[in-house]
Amino acid sequence: MRVAQMTDGFGLDHLPYGVFSPVGGTRRVGVRIGDDVLDLAAATGRPELATPSLNAFMALGPDVWAETRAEARRLLEAGAATVPLRDVELHLPIEVADYVDFYASIHHATNVGRIFRPDGAALLPNWRHLPVGYHGRAGTVVPSGTPIVRPRGQRPAADGPTYGASRRLDIEAELGFVVGVGSQLGTPVPYGAFADHVFGVVGLNDWSARDIQAWEYVPLGPFLGKSFATSVSHWVTPVAALAAAWVELPGQDPEPLPYLGPDLTRGLDIDVEVVLNGEVVSRPPYRTMYWSPAQMLAHLTVNGASLRTGDLYGSGTISGPEPEQRGSLLEIGWGDESAYLADGDEVVLRYSAPGTGGGRIALGEVRGRVQPPGS
Amino acid sequence: MRVAQMTDGFGLDHLPYGVFSPVGGTRRVGVRIGDDVLDLAAATGRPELATPSLNAFMALGPDVWAETRAEARRLLEAGAATVPLRDVELHLPIEVADYVDFYASIHHATNVGRIFRPDGAALLPNWRHLPVGYHGRAGTVVPSGTPIVRPRGQRPAADGPTYGASRRLDIEAELGFVVGVGSQLGTPVPYGAFADHVFGVVGLNDWSARDIQAWEYVPLGPFLGKSFATSVSHWVTPVAALAAAWVELPGQDPEPLPYLGPDLTRGLDIDVEVVLNGEVVSRPPYRTMYWSPAQMLAHLTVNGASLRTGDLYGSGTISGPEPEQRGSLLEIGWGDESAYLADGDEVVLRYSAPGTGGGRIALGEVRGRVQPPGS
Repeated sequence: MRVAQMTDGFGLDHLPYGVFSPVGGTRRVGVRIGDDVLDLAAATGRPELATPSLNAFMALGPDVWAETRAEARRLLEAGAATVPLRDVELHLPIEVADYVDFYASIHHATNVGRIFRPDGAALLPNWRHLPVGYHGRAGTVVPSGTPIVRPRGQRPAADGPTYGASRRLDIEAELGFVVGVGSQLGTPVPYGAFADHVFGVVGLNDWSARDIQAWEYVPLGPFLGKSFATSVSHWVTPVAALAAAWVELPGQDPEPLPYLGPDLTRGLDIDVEVVLNGEVVSRPPYRTMYWSPAQMLAHLTVNGASLRTGDLYGSGTISGPEPEQRGSLLEIGWGDESAYLADGDEVVLRYSAPGTGGGRIALGEVRGRVQPPGS
Repeated sequence: MRVAQMTDGFGLDHLPYGVFSPVGGTRRVGVRIGDDVLDLAAATGRPELATPSLNAFMALGPDVWAETRAEARRLLEAGAATVPLRDVELHLPIEVADYVDFYASIHHATNVGRIFRPDGAALLPNWRHLPVGYHGRAGTVVPSGTPIVRPRGQRPAADGPTYGASRRLDIEAELGFVVGVGSQLGTPVPYGAFADHVFGVVGLNDWSARDIQAWEYVPLGPFLGKSFATSVSHWVTPVAALAAAWVELPGQDPEPLPYLGPDLTRGLDIDVEVVLNGEVVSRPPYRTMYWSPAQMLAHLTVNGASLRTGDLYGSGTISGPEPEQRGSLLEIGWGDESAYLADGDEVVLRYSAPGTGGGRIALGEVRGRVQPPGS
């Protein structure tokens, strides 16, 4: 393809990474340009790119990330051959090590508090002091396009729980952060070291069964209400491609403890679209989040927990202050039972951000269709 | 060594698996016999044993597990050469995929409820209907002997949280179950398939910072209060070695839903000793647990979540009905601040069970010493 044809947010200022296989070929690392992919493994001959995940490449660190990004751009500008996306298969781009999900939108946390505790305080006492988070199931992180089988489990009822398929299947529109460089056990990662460890960003849908979750979650948190599937985009947008997207967060009150870096509270100006059966039902703005990506990373490791290549952490549901900016059907329907997903429904999350070239880049979309449970 | 010399619960009826390296050598799979190890990789020449974790071997399934166990026994009976444990280094035996921790002792859950909610119901409404559980951090599962660095984090205080080292560092004496054979996404694993998937059992200490946990855990569960370290034994006792240890559970009321197999509620008659600085401070009996190992597995997957080779799930703190059978310092001290761990304290968990040879086998111990946090 010619560079002049590139459209749709996948130009030379973006160049996200993914894992693909040509027909009959093995998985390898590629870079997306327009509606094509550059076989980076073949074009560079580098062994860490001829692998079925980005992990070996991500582990090499920021200097190699920068060199490789520059090399991919040079190859494309020089007219390197690319393959149309329609001729390849796309895969989960990373081997997920640990998956952590945060709860970093004050609008989402407040909405959920108002729906579930209408007579109590909307936010719990710890919420403004730390980014609340928990571990999810790494083994059920799936790539965009994977069918989502409606989960079964225990649903609350007046006479005790009943067993069956969830009746309140929901989405959570999130951003995911992918760790490239690990850290040592016992040594926290300071908030200023974000760019030394975080390789890139994915779109993320944290599918949630609200009925299962509501019954199971005390006192140890969500488990089966979330662990059946978490979808991520095929494409990982490198942090370098988001250089023009950093913005100040709306503000934090009270000022967080020093380890949470109150002087580096930068968020990302990423727009999200929630598309349900082809119709845009919400436009959550990531710039309205309360806790920053670097603060989540600093908190995750403040107790000495180590990072590994492939760790993934989600922002939690992105909801803005306005009703049309809510990132879950629980909030969009405000508890209305008919708002939840029916079998056959398809949800697509789309993301865009300012690019370094003056226009906008389109992060990888996250797509999933609901299937009824098997027999 | 001669078989006649075998003592201390590591005889021919046990033969647990581990990963070791001789001086200057690479990691490989071995079998413990007495105070020696049989280099199973060298003795059999099988490539899946010449690897730095048990995962490749575990993935081969129950028939291979049985054949390999019989082969190890034959080799030892025929006088195969072994290496003294003092001449080798032991490692984490498995590559942990996902780590889930349950809360399956009714005595522990009741004690915790009484300590934290003295005026409320000791058990929450869901507790007798499902094995409550949550995901922990797989990347910080460490082998016995790894120093435990006292975690820092946010501690609750009247005027808001303070940052510093945990003042309430605790243990949780548990049993861990290691998954050998994975399962398909979307397909639950029935309780009757326990032996098709679970390879073996490890000792497990779920180190816990009670002050960090108490502040952070609403509403999404424990996170940094647990994620700094979880210690497991070097040795994985195969399920086959526990054939004489199965016992009926004490009983479940109300009867669980059918997917939780109310007709197969077998527990394990494993005795635990909690040793603090050389002194036995508690003897929790695993046979007093409420939820069975097979029920925990069935619950973990009822929503269609898949299993992977290397998945690890813990029983939760093992506490019996008597005061001298409690598996955490929170319960042993009943909230007394002086009961928690001081820097330099060493905790050893020891486990024993009836062997198939008429005597007792000793499962791998779990050892850890508390270190002050670094600067």
